[in-house]
Amino acid sequence: MTDNQRILLSEIPKGKLTESHFSLDQVAIEKPGPGEVLIRTLILSQDAANRAWMQGATYRSALTTGQVMSSFGLGEVVESNDDRFAPGDLVGGDLCWQAYATLPGRQISPAHTNGGPLSHGISLLGVAGLTAYHGLINVPTIHAGETLLVSAAGGSVGSLVGQIGKIRGAKVIGIAGGPDKCNWVVDELGFDACLDYKDTSAPLRDLLAQQAGDGIDVYFDNTGGDILQTALFAMNVKGRISCCGAVSMYDGKPRPGPFGIPGLLVTKRLHMQGFLVSDYSHLDWDARHDLSLWAKLGQLKVVEDIIDGLENAPRGLIGLLAGDNRGKRMIRVAT
Amino acid sequence: MTDNQRILLSEIPKGKLTESHFSLDQVAIEKPGPGEVLIRTLILSQDAANRAWMQGATYRSALTTGQVMSSFGLGEVVESNDDRFAPGDLVGGDLCWQAYATLPGRQISPAHTNGGPLSHGISLLGVAGLTAYHGLINVPTIHAGETLLVSAAGGSVGSLVGQIGKIRGAKVIGIAGGPDKCNWVVDELGFDACLDYKDTSAPLRDLLAQQAGDGIDVYFDNTGGDILQTALFAMNVKGRISCCGAVSMYDGKPRPGPFGIPGLLVTKRLHMQGFLVSDYSHLDWDARHDLSLWAKLGQLKVVEDIIDGLENAPRGLIGLLAGDNRGKRMIRVAT
Repeated sequence: MTDNQRILLSEIPKGKLTESHFSLDQVAIEKPGPGEVLIRTLILSQDAANRAWMQGATYRSALTTGQVMSSFGLGEVVESNDDRFAPGDLVGGDLCWQAYATLPGRQISPAHTNGGPLSHGISLLGVAGLTAYHGLINVPTIHAGETLLVSAAGGSVGSLVGQIGKIRGAKVIGIAGGPDKCNWVVDELGFDACLDYKDTSAPLRDLLAQQAGDGIDVYFDNTGGDILQTALFAMNVKGRISCCGAVSMYDGKPRPGPFGIPGLLVTKRLHMQGFLVSDYSHLDWDARHDLSLWAKLGQLKVVEDIIDGLENAPRGLIGLLAGDNRGKRMIRVAT
Repeated sequence: MTDNQRILLSEIPKGKLTESHFSLDQVAIEKPGPGEVLIRTLILSQDAANRAWMQGATYRSALTTGQVMSSFGLGEVVESNDDRFAPGDLVGGDLCWQAYATLPGRQISPAHTNGGPLSHGISLLGVAGLTAYHGLINVPTIHAGETLLVSAAGGSVGSLVGQIGKIRGAKVIGIAGGPDKCNWVVDELGFDACLDYKDTSAPLRDLLAQQAGDGIDVYFDNTGGDILQTALFAMNVKGRISCCGAVSMYDGKPRPGPFGIPGLLVTKRLHMQGFLVSDYSHLDWDARHDLSLWAKLGQLKVVEDIIDGLENAPRGLIGLLAGDNRGKRMIRVAT
């Protein structure tokens, strides 16, 4: 057997994440102990939340200096001391940035692909797809005829949220960075409009007013920060905000929240709810069923942004935080 | 008939509200036109929201320079050109800071006292009582055994919210300004604890940690600002925040919202909901029934802070914004 290639988080970033915060190493593959499973990593998910884990305890404990960088991934069981798994099984878990992971069987679960490619187990049917589905269908419940605003519209979750909104009969406005990405969101993903938050010729609130004259009923917030601020002022009375993440806040110093909280919440009687995809795991079967069906019918495009090679994981994550991905970014480690 | 004494909002405050922003005048009483009703003002409500109306459009249009200062009040019908009202009827509406109000009949409604004193139509059974009831029972739904945090605990709404929380079986922690008021909240109103946000010997978060070691399940926010910030960090997973008002933000310049929005909302899956009491008007009958019953049984103390004389309305409102009231502040204009 070969050695295990790993990428360590060698330093916790104080400001922007750079490649210098990571280092490569190589160690012997760890034999699985009682109840453990050895997994060969095939594909890793890249998520803005990876950066948040470096800031402190979130829904999981904080990352620490010197550990192998954490990441959800899918892989193939090589050796198993857990009766539930056998060599050849495709499984998912916190495989981390490494070629081989040795984990307790209770920390992994079967990969869900519903007959599609393995990457769907991370994109359409993984955390990205489930987050988009639950965060739009089960947190605020979007209704036909309403106006939906989605930030990070070209990202893994946003690209699906907007398409699900269209399937449900909403008018969908995206927010993304740069004219190329915005055009792609409209032309390829079928959003009704996409606003470029990097456009310096007009304030975002004016762009939004042009496209959403009747106001926003549901805002799916992937970014926090200034975009959340702008959305708050454009919300309709009894509008609902689904708080999925705050990518604008992860890669730098903490900043205060938007003006108008809680004033605008009271005046407009807004609902603001944070959620984690795991809160809705009892509804995952329904979500995967609908998502698979919509994709099969051609109503939902699954957009994947796959980079080859474990060594490119740091660069991939840094680029993701800068918003240079289109759809779900993943690192293919092996085939 | 005598003239009408009125207090005008002669200048919109840029910073703190002072008596110089108001002026007295005296005009002839306006005869009611078709469909209108002439009302003799008996008692006026004083509300932090009065100050918010000066800042711009809220759930109502903004106040303008030179108008009679707006205020909810109760009065007696003197003359009526609306079949639904007759001389002697006790009614409520936006009577404003004046001895006599002439209003369209459709803008007034019967006073609710359920057999108690007239002031109960503003305190226990008026907007204060209904706000406390709906904002705790119908917005987040408090459960027995949970921990409830209430800001402005000595105020018109907070004093009732905490007592309702106790009736519902919650552990109740108040926040108020100054040791005297805090002692009163515990000794007189029966809260389990009351934290003094003006105490400079320890940060509020430390005081809160001492009293709420198991965290906060429901936070009833009357203040916004730094207290909301502290509460956010102390909330339990799936905690609920009922946003009732933001009194700390009304009397001065707008300030940004708390750190951790939306980050903490996601991590802890918090619900944050703004509401107006009118959203729940279909449940007002139930609310008044429960509130009257609890008061009659001695489970709920109705705390009223009544100042005599219309001319004292500016001073009363300024004091309210500084937090020097205990319970529901009102101005008795006539008997």
